[in-house]
Parts: sequence; structure tokens; C-alpha cells
Amino acid sequence: MFRISRSVLALAGIGALVATPALAQEVPEHGVFVLNSLLFLIGGVLVMFMACGFCMLETGLVRSKNTTMQLTKNVALFSVAAIGYYLIGYNLMYPLGTWSIDGILSGVIGIAVMEAVGIAPDAADDLAYASTASDYFFQLMFCAATASIVSGTLAERIKLWPFLLFTLILTAVIYPLQASWKWGGGFLDEMGFLDFAGSTVVHSVGGWAALAGALVLGARTGKYKDGRVVPMPGANLPLATLGMFILWLGWFGFNGGSQLAMGTVSDVADVSRIFANTNAAAAGGAIAAAVATQLMYKKVDLTMVLNGALAGLVSITAEPLTPTLGAATLIGGIGGVIVVFTVPLLDKFQIDDVVGAIPVHLIAGIWGTLAVPITNGDASFGTQITSIVIVGVFTFVVSWIVWTILKMTIGIRVSEEVELAGLDNAELGMEAYPEFSRQV
Amino acid sequence: MFRISRSVLALAGIGALVATPALAQEVPEHGVFVLNSLLFLIGGVLVMFMACGFCMLETGLVRSKNTTMQLTKNVALFSVAAIGYYLIGYNLMYPLGTWSIDGILSGVIGIAVMEAVGIAPDAADDLAYASTASDYFFQLMFCAATASIVSGTLAERIKLWPFLLFTLILTAVIYPLQASWKWGGGFLDEMGFLDFAGSTVVHSVGGWAALAGALVLGARTGKYKDGRVVPMPGANLPLATLGMFILWLGWFGFNGGSQLAMGTVSDVADVSRIFANTNAAAAGGAIAAAVATQLMYKKVDLTMVLNGALAGLVSITAEPLTPTLGAATLIGGIGGVIVVFTVPLLDKFQIDDVVGAIPVHLIAGIWGTLAVPITNGDASFGTQITSIVIVGVFTFVVSWIVWTILKMTIGIRVSEEVELAGLDNAELGMEAYPEFSRQV
Amino acid sequence: MFRISRSVLALAGIGALVATPALAQEVPEHGVFVLNSLLFLIGGVLVMFMACGFCMLETGLVRSKNTTMQLTKNVALFSVAAIGYYLIGYNLMYPLGTWSIDGILSGVIGIAVMEAVGIAPDAADDLAYASTASDYFFQLMFCAATASIVSGTLAERIKLWPFLLFTLILTAVIYPLQASWKWGGGFLDEMGFLDFAGSTVVHSVGGWAALAGALVLGARTGKYKDGRVVPMPGANLPLATLGMFILWLGWFGFNGGSQLAMGTVSDVADVSRIFANTNAAAAGGAIAAAVATQLMYKKVDLTMVLNGALAGLVSITAEPLTPTLGAATLIGGIGGVIVVFTVPLLDKFQIDDVVGAIPVHLIAGIWGTLAVPITNGDASFGTQITSIVIVGVFTFVVSWIVWTILKMTIGIRVSEEVELAGLDNAELGMEAYPEFSRQV
Repeated sequence: MFRISRSVLALAGIGALVATPALAQEVPEHGVFVLNSLLFLIGGVLVMFMACGFCMLETGLVRSKNTTMQLTKNVALFSVAAIGYYLIGYNLMYPLGTWSIDGILSGVIGIAVMEAVGIAPDAADDLAYASTASDYFFQLMFCAATASIVSGTLAERIKLWPFLLFTLILTAVIYPLQASWKWGGGFLDEMGFLDFAGSTVVHSVGGWAALAGALVLGARTGKYKDGRVVPMPGANLPLATLGMFILWLGWFGFNGGSQLAMGTVSDVADVSRIFANTNAAAAGGAIAAAVATQLMYKKVDLTMVLNGALAGLVSITAEPLTPTLGAATLIGGIGGVIVVFTVPLLDKFQIDDVVGAIPVHLIAGIWGTLAVPITNGDASFGTQITSIVIVGVFTFVVSWIVWTILKMTIGIRVSEEVELAGLDNAELGMEAYPEFSRQV
Repeated sequence: MFRISRSVLALAGIGALVATPALAQEVPEHGVFVLNSLLFLIGGVLVMFMACGFCMLETGLVRSKNTTMQLTKNVALFSVAAIGYYLIGYNLMYPLGTWSIDGILSGVIGIAVMEAVGIAPDAADDLAYASTASDYFFQLMFCAATASIVSGTLAERIKLWPFLLFTLILTAVIYPLQASWKWGGGFLDEMGFLDFAGSTVVHSVGGWAALAGALVLGARTGKYKDGRVVPMPGANLPLATLGMFILWLGWFGFNGGSQLAMGTVSDVADVSRIFANTNAAAAGGAIAAAVATQLMYKKVDLTMVLNGALAGLVSITAEPLTPTLGAATLIGGIGGVIVVFTVPLLDKFQIDDVVGAIPVHLIAGIWGTLAVPITNGDASFGTQITSIVIVGVFTFVVSWIVWTILKMTIGIRVSEEVELAGLDNAELGMEAYPEFSRQV
Repeated sequence: MFRISRSVLALAGIGALVATPALAQEVPEHGVFVLNSLLFLIGGVLVMFMACGFCMLETGLVRSKNTTMQLTKNVALFSVAAIGYYLIGYNLMYPLGTWSIDGILSGVIGIAVMEAVGIAPDAADDLAYASTASDYFFQLMFCAATASIVSGTLAERIKLWPFLLFTLILTAVIYPLQASWKWGGGFLDEMGFLDFAGSTVVHSVGGWAALAGALVLGARTGKYKDGRVVPMPGANLPLATLGMFILWLGWFGFNGGSQLAMGTVSDVADVSRIFANTNAAAAGGAIAAAVATQLMYKKVDLTMVLNGALAGLVSITAEPLTPTLGAATLIGGIGGVIVVFTVPLLDKFQIDDVVGAIPVHLIAGIWGTLAVPITNGDASFGTQITSIVIVGVFTFVVSWIVWTILKMTIGIRVSEEVELAGLDNAELGMEAYPEFSRQV
């Protein structure tokens, strides 16, 4: 059947290949390039959707009076991350740039640049890797995930714009700089630090930034009263569960895409192992949290089950390839148990983490990073610990400084009246559920 | 390990290839065919999910008493589109059919027909393109998206069946006919009109059809009272935000799939550019709307941020390939600002667009189409304007006539009592949130 | 541009290929392996997301007082399935294992084992098929879907842990054993039974297990009173609609992935046919249910439209490849009508199926299986019936025995007080919508 192509460029591209039998000899390399790029695009799309997962999870776990604000923050932070990573972050992360005039002038430092439109094979950066734009797209989504982690912890009391300002610094500088130490070929990579998809580089970094923010910001008014912890239950648990499922879904892209290649038998089989292990770890985390809360509290706690599944996912992220399915289930299961024990612990220290992001992303992230040597002989326990500490100290200290400067200048916290009235009405003038009356 | 295949056909297909070393020489063409078809399948699945995104966005923005109706309309319109495009639309769009007895008898005009089951390579329509069924699947989803746009504008007062009747005409005739002028190789294509993924062909068409409907249908009762605009806030903003995120996700398929090919280095790198630019434009739109509402109203408006992101996506749809990341961000950002300014403008003209679909899809669609020449030297400003006008006049006039005929015959609007009571109880006898009491 | 890979293994893999021109000759087989594995990964991810779809659908259709429980069950059952299928199910299903000491010792029976990390092409199980881990991942998701079907029917009155115990038996033994009869190359396959993606093997099995459970468990208190059916409407229809859309989305993976191959022109064109037909059947089911409820009740019933779309999907699942688009629409449409007629029928027999899963998955599953011979000449009507009966008797009887044993030992039903108070507060101590007051 006659079919008119919409895209003249596309047709020209196909035509050129069909008309050039000489290209046939180069198919293997091109196939690898195409398939690797496709892995980044599929993986990137899945990780992009995690922004929605975080948004739904966090929004379901806040009270209805702060719901519009939590939605607004999540949409805005993802957008800010896209700008911060574009302007500075990407080239700060790959390669490990030196902040010199030369670097800036030569474009090594500065805004991200994609390859030209309709690029010919011999003009591609690296035919054995993937298209630059697909790599950028994929890496951006990891950077944005780091920012999403922070917004959950600090919910229900932080001002919008200071939060977005922190997000800009996190995604333009803090995340990319420390990520370059491992994924940009920096000194942690040279030391032999292993972190396949980012239990430390992404999740613990989000967790450290959140922890610093929680300390500088303080707990919600009334959360800790006379030594008691006052429950402030989330308004919409179906929404939180939806968010968890979307995150579970997106994690296949997060971990699977981090194989960075799927053009060969070896690579696609490894990506497949990663998918299966990622799922096993999430299942292990959810079941472990269900059993643990049943044993400890005589009742299964849904929010712990949700966070248990997420902790299972974070735990397997540092090494989703080498474990067997059974080992992956156990590694995730331990992550799930960690959450059940550390959520109350944070409350004991009066660190107010609204959605449990610090247990899930920071503590399970540390566990996952430490677990790498169990199944991967190339990893050293000492190097893993050293790297966790270096990344942790850097991220926590810099984040703490940034939060403190923001607090002392423009202020980061809404007034107590605004907090009690709810941020939606007072700060945004828009209710999320304007027709549903509240139980008294 | 021994593994029984479920599908005898599938095994036979593999067996044939493995047993036929002669095929090895033809791998490049076949690889292109397989990968292009795969692009359509992945892209089509993502665009299909946009039907869910539109449904959630629109449902979150209507009042609770009209929620079941909005859900019903969105499920039904997507299903009607599948039937209308199958019966007439697809073959009307590709190629530009002439409505002759010959055409109907020869199958050029008429129902869509896929290639045979288990087709051999030499029987495929075009080995340099993709499978017919994958193309049909992908194109159908674009057609359905046009219909989804209309349902948001006309919410809370239109009757179900007349709306579905219009949807049938839109998806069987109006959309495919004008789409054939560009994507079917018709006169707009020959003129040099450029619209990569449909800022005009899809989004503005949905917007024009919605505008015609809004004018014929009239505003909601009580919306414009004594010169004032009465706010009728949506009942469920988390749902609307979920819808926006799903649309953002689906747009990667919408724009990326419109490259129509990914089997070569050039094509897959272009698809990657498109993914990255699409994301940048959405981010630009969201941030621009946030900043604009902060400056204008001293408060960030979440519904504007959601529509700003969508306007950013619509704006980049006419040309997602040639811009740099920075240009894409700016093009999207201008789309976001457009929404903030045109939503109140429509209210000034008492055009009642419940979800803001006309600013997002029509006005940002025009902007995106006009912006093509800025980054693509092959586009001419004059041709872009001429094409916008031709498509707009055609779609608006035909839609207006159809709406008017429907109004004068079977009627398109519920009675005032039904409208005040809510369409859910009066028309469908089913509440969407039967247990949640309404605030008085 | 210089780019450091995160994964040393990945880089080594690429390097090996690039450095080995001899491999170029083997590209076709490897391309098939890579693309088939990719189909399983994409398909598996989509089917995994169906777990979220089921969760949202079912949660939207229960009352608010049982919402947290329905969420908890759905997250937990998916996790239990991952463990049951890993421990026993997968190797019970492929190949048809004999439960001998030899089988257990040799690993034919027992836990699922993936191929080694970084496997070389000549060490792969079957270069013409796909990676073992990708196959495991894909098949697991089908097993889990069976369990999701059961949870909807038994909602609002079943205890959590007995339900999960049944899920473990279902996913470790019942589903895999009968699935091996067809998909493991067992006697139903040898008889010539055709069930492409599981109208019988998956959906009717879920339906039979649910029916057995409903009979043993009994109806909800107050559901059937003095011969009347008391309506107990779902609390959140947008959530149910979201679930339906997610299921529709996931079904492309369910049916399309069941082609088991996409590395050739023939296979990818068949996968494309399947995608288009799957969509057509869902559309047919939705429209048929809308029209049928309009004619019968003078009002379109959204829950019937949702179940109609799902019934359309179930109906096409036994044979999504051979029908034309028109035939697929009709097959799905009949499925939609079946739902409208059988939902009230179940109530007449006082079988309390909270979400309509038995009409959708069991009855439409039977219809879809019977419809195979209409478009596929290789199928025999007699063999289809025989197979439906064998699978049905086996699944129903074994499920009934398991439910009865559970009932007589640990008990499966909450007390009447707990049921009236709602399972959320009484069993879990956690409300799903704690702030939204209930209408009286």
C-alpha cells in the first residue's frame, strides 16, 4: 500500500540505507547503537513516569489541606530539574569537568548539547554506545528522581519557591558533582566503588539532602507533643498505592536501563536478569514489611508495605545483576524490615519525615550498597563503606549549608498560622478536594 | 532448557529464519522494518495511554456531580474513535482517496485492512517502512486524541449520545480528511507545510472542534453572572495532576513515534533528540506558567501549571526535532505563558471551556506551528499561516454545522434541572463518589 | 564525546562485539534473540502494570470502609505470586516436570534459575528464542494476573492472611500445573487446544478460583435481603476507571508479548496485528455494554462499560492474531454484552462477586475460547470445549478444596461486626480516606 511519510528526513534516512548495500557490513555496530539508544529511551520514559509515582505517593500521604501544594511542588521540581541539569548538571557529570575558562569555552562545561539532526553513522560520538540525546534523556531522569525524594520528607511546612531554589542547586550542582565521582569516571569509580543504578549515587543522595532539610526546617507543628508522636495520617491511600505501583513500574527502567546496553546476547540477558531481580526485591520488601508489622503490631500496616516494597527496590539498585532471584528477594526483604524499624526511630529523634523517604531511600540505600559484595566478588566492603561516607558527608554538609543560607535569607518555612490552616488555602488559594467535607 | 512455544506460528517463523542463511544478507532492511514497527507499537501504546490521561485530567477538573459522566464520555469516545477510524477514517487519510465507486470497490476507500497473518518479507507492503497494522495502530491513537480534546471543553452540560455521534463524525471524517492534506500527501504537504507530530493537524483540530461545540452549546448555567465569572473549581486535583503526568508520558510516543523510523543511527538519534526536546518543552511550559501566575496573581496556580506543561508539549509538537534543548524550553515556555493569558480571555468572551482545552490545544497549537520556521529552515512562515487558516476554517465550519444540526434535531444539551442536579444522578443514575459528602 | 560507562560488564560486552568482526555473520540469530527478549521485557512490564490496574479497579469498586484492605491485598498478592512462582511455579509449568527426587535434584523441579551473568551467545539456552530471565519475567506476570482476578470477587469480607495463603497455592501450584498442560507442551497442547494468550489458561482460571472462593465464603452480609439485591456502590469511580485504562494498556503486553517473538518481519507484523485487534476488541466491548445498558435500563452504566471493555479484552485473548479488525470488534462486543447479562444472573444465584470478575474473566473467557475456531481454521470447537471443561473442573475442584480446608482450619471470613464496621478500621486500623466524611 502506498504510504506517504510525514517526515522527509525519516524517509531520506531509510532511503539512504536501502540504497547503500555497503552499509550492510556495518550492521552489527549500528544495531548495537540503535538498540542501546532504544534502551535509554524506554528506560528514560519509565524513570520519567517515576516523577508521577513520587507525586502520587507523596500526595496520598499528606493531609488534604496540603495536597495542592504537594502536587504543585512535584510538577515544578521535575521541571526545574530539567532546566538545572540542562544548564549545568549534565556536563558537570560527564566527563568530570574542570571549571576552567577553557572548559567553558570549549563546551565541556556548560549547557548540554545533543548531536546534530539526522546524524550520519560516522559522525556519531561513539557507535558502540548510544545517541547522546538518549543518554542525556536517561541521565536527566535520574537527576530528577533525586529531587523527588526530597519533596516527600519536607512536605506540609516548606515554602514553594525556596524548595524549588534548593531543587535547582541539587540538580544543577550537588547531584551531578557527586555522580561524576562514580558515573563520570571520577575517583570513586577508580577506587572500585560499585553502585550499578544508584542506591548511593541517587537514593542516598536524595535521602541525605532530605535529612539536612528536615533538620534545618524542623518538624511539623504539633507532630511531637509532650514526648508523644501525634499521627497525621495521609488523606488518600489509594493515591499513595498508585504512586508505589508507578514507582515499581518505573524501576525496571531505572535498573534495567543502567545496564547501558542491550544490543548483544550478553547485554539483553543481563537486562532481563535485572528486570526479574528488581521485581523479586520489591516483592521481598513488601512481604517482609507485611510480616514484620503483623508480628510487631498484630496488624499489617499498608503504608509500611508500600514503603517496604520501595525499600526493596532501593536495596537492589546498587547491584540488580549478580544476585540470584532468591538473593534478590532476601536483599529486598531486609530492606523492607529496615523500613519497619527505622520509621519509628526517626520519630524518636523527632526528625519529621512525612512520607518515610529517609528510611526508604537513605537507610535502605546504604544497606543495598553494603550488600553488593555479598553477590558481586568485584566489590570490596571497605570501598563501599568509604564511598557511602564520602558521598554522604559531601551531600549532607553542602545541603545543610544551602538549606541554612536559604533559611537565614528568604526563609524556608511557612508561618504557624499558614501551617495550621493548610498550605493550599493560605499559600496557593486552591483546595485539592474543594467539595469533600472533612471529618471533625 | 527445553521450552515449548505457545505459538506454533511464532516458532515456525523463527525456524524458517534460522534455517535459511540466505536471509542474512537482507538483515538491514528487515531490521529497519522490525524496528520501525516496534517504534509504532511503543509509540502507539504511549499515545493510547493519553486517553487515560485526558480522562483523568478532565475528570479531576469537573465538579463531583458530573464525574461519572466525564468518565463515561472518555471511555466511550476512545472506543467510538476506534470504530470510526476503522470503518472510514484510516483509508480516507492514507492515501488521499477519491470517493468513487472504484475506490470503494478496490478497498482504497473503506474499512482498514491489515496485512495477512504470518506475512513473508517479500509480501510486506514496504520493507523500508513498517507493518501496516503497526501504522494503523499508531495513527488510530492520534485520531482518538483529537476526540479527547473536545470532551474537556464541553463537560458538565452536554448529553452523552449526541457527543458520541459528533465523535464518530470527527474521527471517521473530519480529522482524517484534513489530516490527509498533510500526512496523506495532500495539497498542504505539497505546499511545504511542516507539522511534525500535529500541533495543527491534531491539537488545533481538536481545539477548533471544541470551540465550535462551545459556541453552539453555550456556557454552563450560572458560569457568567452579571458580568462576573463564577469559579466552578474541579473536585479532584490529584486526579487532574495524574492526568497531566500521563499525558506528558504519552507525548514521548506522540512526538517520538512521529519520526516514523528508528532503524538507523540517524533515525534513532533523531528520535532521541525528540524525546529530550519534548521533555524540555513541557518543563518550560510548567515553569513559565508557575512564574507567570506568581507574578500576576501573587500565587502559583496549579491548574495553570498543569495546563502550562501541556501547552509546552503542544507547542513543541509541530517541530520537536530541530530545536536545541534551550530553544525547546523557550518554545514550551511561551506556550505556558500563552495559557496564563488566554484562559481569562476566553472567559471575557463568555466561551466556557471547562478544562482550558482551547488555550492549550488550539492557541498553543497555533503558536507551535508558527514557531517551526524559527528552528527549521525548510519551513516558511507564510505557508504555516496559510495552512493553519485552511485547517482551522475547514474544521471550525464543518464542526459548527454538525453541532448545529445535532442541536436542532436530537438536541445536545441537558435541561437546566439536570445540569443543576448534576449529570451523574439525573442522566446516569450513578454517583462517582457516593460516600463523600459535599461541603455546603 | 568521552563517556564513562557505569557498568564494566556492559562495556566489556560491547567491546567484545566490536572487536570481533567474525560475529557479524551471526547477527540474524542474535538480533532475533535480542528482539524476542526485548518483547518479553516490554510485554512483561506492561503486564506487571496490570497489577496496578486490578488494584485501582477493585479499590474503586469497594466501599470506602474496605479500601485500605483492598489496597493491601493487591500489593501483597502480587508479591506473594512473585515468591510462589519463583519457588515452585515456573519449573512446574516449563517443562512439564515429574515430581521425582531426580527432578528435584537436577533442578528441573524447584526454584527458577536464570542464565549466568554476561552469558556468551554459545552458552545461551536457545538463540532462536529469548533469554531465560526475560521469559521468566514475562510468565511470572501472567501467573500474578490470575491471582489479581480472585481478589476482586472476594472483597469486603475475606481475611487477609488466608487469602494470601490461597494466593500462594494458586500461583505456586494450581495455575502453573494447568498452564503446563497447554503452554508447557502438555496433553491439552497435544490435543490441539488453542489459547493464544490465556482466555482459558489465565482468565477463566482466575474466574474459577474466584467462583469457588465466593461459594465457600458466602455473600456479604446484607447483600441479599428478602430476595432483593441491595446495591453496595463503589466509593471511587475515577479510581475504577483508571484501573480499567491501565488494564487496557497492559493488555497490549499480555496479548502482543504472547507472540513470543518479534525478530522477523512475520513476527513483528503479527505482533502489530495483535495490538490493533486487542484495541478493537476492547472498544467493541465498551460500546456494546454502553448500548446494551442504554437499551435495557435507559441509562448507560459506567461500571458495565468498564467491565464491558475488560470483557472485550478477555474475549480476544484466546485468539488475538487471526481475526480481522472487524471480527475482533465483534468478538469483543459480544463479550461486552455477556457482561451486561451475566452480572445480574450471578446476583440471582446469590453469588456475590464484588467487582464482576466472574462475568468478565470466566464467562467472557469461555466465550473467547469458543470463538477461536471462528477465525482460526486450526482450532476445533470440540477440543476447545473439552479443554475448557478440563481446566475448569480441575481449577474449580482444587480451589474449592483449598478454600474449604482454609475455612475449616484457620477461617477465611471476618466476623459480622468487623464486616459491618469495615475491614480497614477493625482489621488494619487504618482508614483509606480518613478526612472525607461519609454521607448518611
